[in-house]
Amino acid sequence: MQSGSDSFLALLSGIVGTANVLTRDVDMARYVSDWRRNYPGAARAVVRPASTSEVVRVVAACGLHGVPLVPQGGNTGLVGGSTPDASRTEVVLSLGRMTAVRGVDPLNNTMTLEAGCTVLAAQEAAAAQGRLFPLSLASEGSATVGGVLSTNAGGEQVLRYGNTRELTLGVEVVLADGQVLDSLAGLRKDNTGYDLKQLFIGSEGTLGVVTAVTFKLFPPPRTVITAWMAVRDPQAAVEMLSRLTGAVGERVTAFELIGREALSQVLAHPLAGMRDPLPDNCAWAVLFDVSETSPRLDPRPAVEDVLGEAMEDGLVADAVIAASERQAHELWALRDHVPEAQRLCGPSIKHDICVATSLIPVFIAEAGAALEQAMPGIRPVCFGHVGDGNLHYNQSKPAGMADDAFRAREDEVHELVHAVVARLHGSISAEHGIGRLKQAALLRYKSPVALDLMARVKTALDPLNTFNPGRVLPRERVSLATSSSHR
Amino acid sequence: MQSGSDSFLALLSGIVGTANVLTRDVDMARYVSDWRRNYPGAARAVVRPASTSEVVRVVAACGLHGVPLVPQGGNTGLVGGSTPDASRTEVVLSLGRMTAVRGVDPLNNTMTLEAGCTVLAAQEAAAAQGRLFPLSLASEGSATVGGVLSTNAGGEQVLRYGNTRELTLGVEVVLADGQVLDSLAGLRKDNTGYDLKQLFIGSEGTLGVVTAVTFKLFPPPRTVITAWMAVRDPQAAVEMLSRLTGAVGERVTAFELIGREALSQVLAHPLAGMRDPLPDNCAWAVLFDVSETSPRLDPRPAVEDVLGEAMEDGLVADAVIAASERQAHELWALRDHVPEAQRLCGPSIKHDICVATSLIPVFIAEAGAALEQAMPGIRPVCFGHVGDGNLHYNQSKPAGMADDAFRAREDEVHELVHAVVARLHGSISAEHGIGRLKQAALLRYKSPVALDLMARVKTALDPLNTFNPGRVLPRERVSLATSSSHR
Repeated sequence: MQSGSDSFLALLSGIVGTANVLTRDVDMARYVSDWRRNYPGAARAVVRPASTSEVVRVVAACGLHGVPLVPQGGNTGLVGGSTPDASRTEVVLSLGRMTAVRGVDPLNNTMTLEAGCTVLAAQEAAAAQGRLFPLSLASEGSATVGGVLSTNAGGEQVLRYGNTRELTLGVEVVLADGQVLDSLAGLRKDNTGYDLKQLFIGSEGTLGVVTAVTFKLFPPPRTVITAWMAVRDPQAAVEMLSRLTGAVGERVTAFELIGREALSQVLAHPLAGMRDPLPDNCAWAVLFDVSETSPRLDPRPAVEDVLGEAMEDGLVADAVIAASERQAHELWALRDHVPEAQRLCGPSIKHDICVATSLIPVFIAEAGAALEQAMPGIRPVCFGHVGDGNLHYNQSKPAGMADDAFRAREDEVHELVHAVVARLHGSISAEHGIGRLKQAALLRYKSPVALDLMARVKTALDPLNTFNPGRVLPRERVSLATSSSHR
Repeated sequence: MQSGSDSFLALLSGIVGTANVLTRDVDMARYVSDWRRNYPGAARAVVRPASTSEVVRVVAACGLHGVPLVPQGGNTGLVGGSTPDASRTEVVLSLGRMTAVRGVDPLNNTMTLEAGCTVLAAQEAAAAQGRLFPLSLASEGSATVGGVLSTNAGGEQVLRYGNTRELTLGVEVVLADGQVLDSLAGLRKDNTGYDLKQLFIGSEGTLGVVTAVTFKLFPPPRTVITAWMAVRDPQAAVEMLSRLTGAVGERVTAFELIGREALSQVLAHPLAGMRDPLPDNCAWAVLFDVSETSPRLDPRPAVEDVLGEAMEDGLVADAVIAASERQAHELWALRDHVPEAQRLCGPSIKHDICVATSLIPVFIAEAGAALEQAMPGIRPVCFGHVGDGNLHYNQSKPAGMADDAFRAREDEVHELVHAVVARLHGSISAEHGIGRLKQAALLRYKSPVALDLMARVKTALDPLNTFNPGRVLPRERVSLATSSSHR
């Protein structure tokens, strides 16, 4: 089955050294399955280059031998996009050894990092120069900057600072023909032709191997006000975001809706002794941060005024502003433990959707009604980023239903939810990408025009389908485009 | 010369109506030359569709007959990118009749406009709903949103709000095959495959015809502090930007460096009675805006403190904060009249460059020295957006040199300046694009890898080279890519 592989593996060893071509199953184990173990795989080898020039030679070797390459960062993805399939034919290209901070330029508010740097290391490199790198997500200790770039990761501060795409000024990418595209000069304006870096952001390793990134930096926050409020309903949450932004401007950094079922699940488990911040069992809560980067200005009185007026108007039933960093941390812990609490509560059927912020109340009402009709008693665990229009909308089974009976209806639940998303012109994958997990949904809900253009771009940049084949677009879509371009 | 054109023009008339197919030179005059009259052209016709479906049919007709199409918005571009060549074979596709505001969604902070809306109309549509559309540039009364999207226009508030690219959430584009790509749903997160809209932003009409746009909106500023300061040198300007941002955060909205030659030329002409804001003849000045979107917070004391400390430290010699809107307007008028004043002073050789903000002092020193050595007495008129690393660096001739002698050395001057830009890994076209004017410089200074990728993308999306052929990439580059893709 691996005939002829010796010479290929020897070629790889000649490039990166024998110690960095892993072939034993025990050595490859952490690279070949996603961390949720939904996609157990088996690779022909895991290769760990130490430099861009080594990546170039590895890509050339794989191209020459027709070996598919799966680029991998911290392997924290949720959609099976960075691990090999089970065929033992694919090579995992791990960027884990390329961790250099190439430079931080505080006067240009930029930093350049190799792809294997963790997000946490990136935050620390910026902080050491008195700057903020605002990308923050649960997996930041393992997730790499190459990975978050390739998946256009979001996180908790998108409302203020944007997704990874908005934070990216330049990339260094190894292309399928072994050439290196370099736009790491830290330019904020460059209208010399097409903005090619955009192609590699969010394309999940299907168009090239990102080896380095230049990110924007920001002044760090000096004051952060964290508050928890019980809101009348999702519409009140949307209106409160508008009022808060009107009062304190773009300082609203996070604005998270949390449904009662989500909170109940967190409180039902002995997770670090959490408690409900407010006495009444409100159906909907919002956790928000307002951060101020000026050391001389305090937005707290403005926030207090907004909350006071909203209580008079009936939008907000009750609210608490954290009096200390510890209290703020406790409020955020409630939000951050929702996924773990739901896992402890049994099986779940997950969605990561986006609609216009103004349509969030409509989405919640329509999706909830459709699900309740199809499966009475189903419990939507609804939480997410109101300002981004992004909800994590994850179902728990009705009380008393068997796990298997619930799991058996997963596709039906997905279809009900995605149909509402499609009707509202939303996205079926706001943050997590497509990978393999959401490919069927992509083909069903993405417009044929967009799918066709994607295939053209893929074929133009990676004509032999070397990079992450079968992820995002299925193989046959890419072949189709290749042949039609030969008309 | 126009044999067979009757049936083609009749086809166009059948789509948009005879009144909207202009063929008489007198009717076409305003469409066929750029407004600076550097590129006098002659079109086969100017066609003015009223809807996306009419654009679809016009594109299909041109594709069928092999007629090249030149999309045009307000025709305010500076690089010859939106007017026909002199061959009388190209059709101008004017979006001027598509001016509908399709919707403003204040709760989603978005608006959707047809491509022919002016930037001013876009600002007004946002303001009517209590929101800010922050794109602002000198030509905003004529420039269209389709045009600024296609050129990724910058303007005076990029430091805070970004270029047009960062303001764009979605596009509606008619593709070469007549299909329509639509991403106008106002989503802030959508990781379902490649972000195709990015391809059309800044590609100067070479990949498709943009027919509508969805932009982000922001809370409007409540307070704007405008100040003028004499700085020690360009390095002091860069440091002042850092200090100011440290003190007031991202409220710094504009930060414009102005060299003495630029100011002298403005003051030398009786342009609306301008006067030097400060008594001493400083070599370098900075004009900045700090804007506050909260009605309850005032950053002025913080700004005053920063200025006071900088004067003690010798970074700033003197400074004045505008005491009224009228004074602020007068300060900005000095900056805004630099191009006009230089025009009145005689011929000029212009550059629109970008380097990392931290390298601006190096660029000014090195480019100035190279120019002075090559042409003693040459007068660089230097002004621009420090926070974006973007300078308009325009030479006036030495005193006593004949206009023709100066103009004869234009290429040499360009090469000296661009060589410094290239050494600093900068951009030779920060804001204005490539069009026809900067194509030779693009081919010289852009990396071959990037040029090759651009050609692949162009060929993949517009295989017959229907859209704006010969702009940005030369025709032979695109053909080259077409044949190599048939390998």
